[in-house]
Amino acid sequence: MSDTHEPISYADAGVDIAAQDEALARARDAIRATNTAGVLGDVGLFGGLFDPAAMGFSDAILVASADGVGTKLEIAKRAERYDGVGRDLVQHCINDILAQGARPLFFLDYVGTGELEPSVVAGLIQGCAAACRDHGVALLGGETAEMPGLYSKGDFDLVGFVVGAVKREHLIDGTRVRPGQTLIGLASDGLHTNGYSLARKVCFEALGLGLHDTPPELGGTTVVDALLAPHRCYLSSLLPLIERGDVAAWAHITGGGVPGNLNRILTTQDAVVRCDAWERPGLFKLLTRDGIVEESEAWRAFNMGVGAILAVEPERVDAILANLAAAGETAFVCGELVEGDGQVHLRP
Amino acid sequence: MSDTHEPISYADAGVDIAAQDEALARARDAIRATNTAGVLGDVGLFGGLFDPAAMGFSDAILVASADGVGTKLEIAKRAERYDGVGRDLVQHCINDILAQGARPLFFLDYVGTGELEPSVVAGLIQGCAAACRDHGVALLGGETAEMPGLYSKGDFDLVGFVVGAVKREHLIDGTRVRPGQTLIGLASDGLHTNGYSLARKVCFEALGLGLHDTPPELGGTTVVDALLAPHRCYLSSLLPLIERGDVAAWAHITGGGVPGNLNRILTTQDAVVRCDAWERPGLFKLLTRDGIVEESEAWRAFNMGVGAILAVEPERVDAILANLAAAGETAFVCGELVEGDGQVHLRP
Repeated sequence: MSDTHEPISYADAGVDIAAQDEALARARDAIRATNTAGVLGDVGLFGGLFDPAAMGFSDAILVASADGVGTKLEIAKRAERYDGVGRDLVQHCINDILAQGARPLFFLDYVGTGELEPSVVAGLIQGCAAACRDHGVALLGGETAEMPGLYSKGDFDLVGFVVGAVKREHLIDGTRVRPGQTLIGLASDGLHTNGYSLARKVCFEALGLGLHDTPPELGGTTVVDALLAPHRCYLSSLLPLIERGDVAAWAHITGGGVPGNLNRILTTQDAVVRCDAWERPGLFKLLTRDGIVEESEAWRAFNMGVGAILAVEPERVDAILANLAAAGETAFVCGELVEGDGQVHLRP
Repeated sequence: MSDTHEPISYADAGVDIAAQDEALARARDAIRATNTAGVLGDVGLFGGLFDPAAMGFSDAILVASADGVGTKLEIAKRAERYDGVGRDLVQHCINDILAQGARPLFFLDYVGTGELEPSVVAGLIQGCAAACRDHGVALLGGETAEMPGLYSKGDFDLVGFVVGAVKREHLIDGTRVRPGQTLIGLASDGLHTNGYSLARKVCFEALGLGLHDTPPELGGTTVVDALLAPHRCYLSSLLPLIERGDVAAWAHITGGGVPGNLNRILTTQDAVVRCDAWERPGLFKLLTRDGIVEESEAWRAFNMGVGAILAVEPERVDAILANLAAAGETAFVCGELVEGDGQVHLRP
């Protein structure tokens, strides 16, 4: 072979190490800006080093979660807006560990691509870094993989991992949930990061909408702005309530919707959710226009306007609602817990 | 629309929640079998709970790493062998945090797919779980995402995230590396998880080999067996040496090869590596046959037969080599550190 052909290089095989280096160089300042007191060492170690004691967690429980952004990525690509999905990912991951009472300590990202475009990858990482910095989370490491063949040109996936810590006395492990507790809902900001495959089919195929259309349900907002609204992070609103013991448990409403997530905090209780406790936001009216998605299916695929549901003691409801309002949340009583076996009942 | 069309379901949009549930159900026993004393709670929490103190790490440094398997996945798909890549991923991740001296505590996986095939996804997760169990690592959580459009049918990506802990006195942070130390190499088991895009191009395009061919360099082994050899895990061999202070630092030889990884443990030293210190294994002879890949390119893309390089004090070399041999490693002196500024010199 070598007598008649040029040698084969890694670049010939579709892997551009210089592009990886460029992407990392572009994002490096943003990554370093996320450093907290817990971070030891610098970018370049084989594993990122973190000292929980430096953050006040010397004998704490660790809480970890992994997640992706789903096909919200497809909309970000069509709109060429790459930084928002990084924020989505970080804020989704933070909420997931906050559901056990944890404060986030550090985050790691993974970007898989077919052909690495440094500006796109840097945008994704910078979006993660900006959200990490806002929430006091160190972006401790990550991996960027260029895999020609596995991903199409221009395609990529974005995955995040978060680790947090919770003092033993603040751990939410389900043991304080009991019948008689009140459910408080917190408004979501759109779809967050779930239901996008269905939402895309409804908006772009069935309803024939374009990214920049403004269907009446959205009240002047474009389809793309409604669909790319960032996943709301409940850290600053909920952590103070959790640390003073006001939250018996709470469900992060993600894939599976209210029925598929609220059940996760139940054991010998049922939840009764009054669906008229909040007005369905315009985006969810659009996605269920004329029954284009059946109600039961919509409640499983979408959060339907509620991003978090808390179980709290009834006598604390007024104080909690006041705190949540002061923290900028739209919060409302939306049901209660009764004796049961883990079922979620949606009341129209 | 709804007057003339059936309502659109999530399944219509290509997302099969039942298939996700089935994949998780198939893998659940394997996941639970990885539980260690540190694991609190069970599958189903929003974030996985882990108590480092229960594993003897009550005031330790955490070490974390994220990684993928690269296009080794493409070969696994062609061969329809899905469990091995899970092991590759776990063992790669463990080595990365072991490079800072850490014992692995827990692991999380992410599987992204186009169309979710429960047996394939379960195989991937079971492979991760088997490796976790072998190494005493809890498979604490994970995420499976079905993303029609982003991945093609049959395509998937697999990402792993590991967290370990190291007592302060065992931390490897580069401060004990100095000129005069000896370099000890540990044999790899094939390509591990790097260089596959180039290796595939060489084997399947340039050399025209099939998966089950047995080119002379491989001494009877098939191409697919050579390419899918699991990423060797150095945990049980190196941790005892690390904990008694015998390893000043060590480089995990992954993407970038010897020159792109050994430099990561250097500051005011250069490394001189004698490439004739070990015999190039048959797979690497095949991949460089007749100069089909240039030497300098091959050393950057492939590990060339060495999966780990340790920096140790010269007077400890004999004892360390004896320990490594007893632990089943093929280990050899392959160079030394001299005064310098972080360069790696490969001597033929």
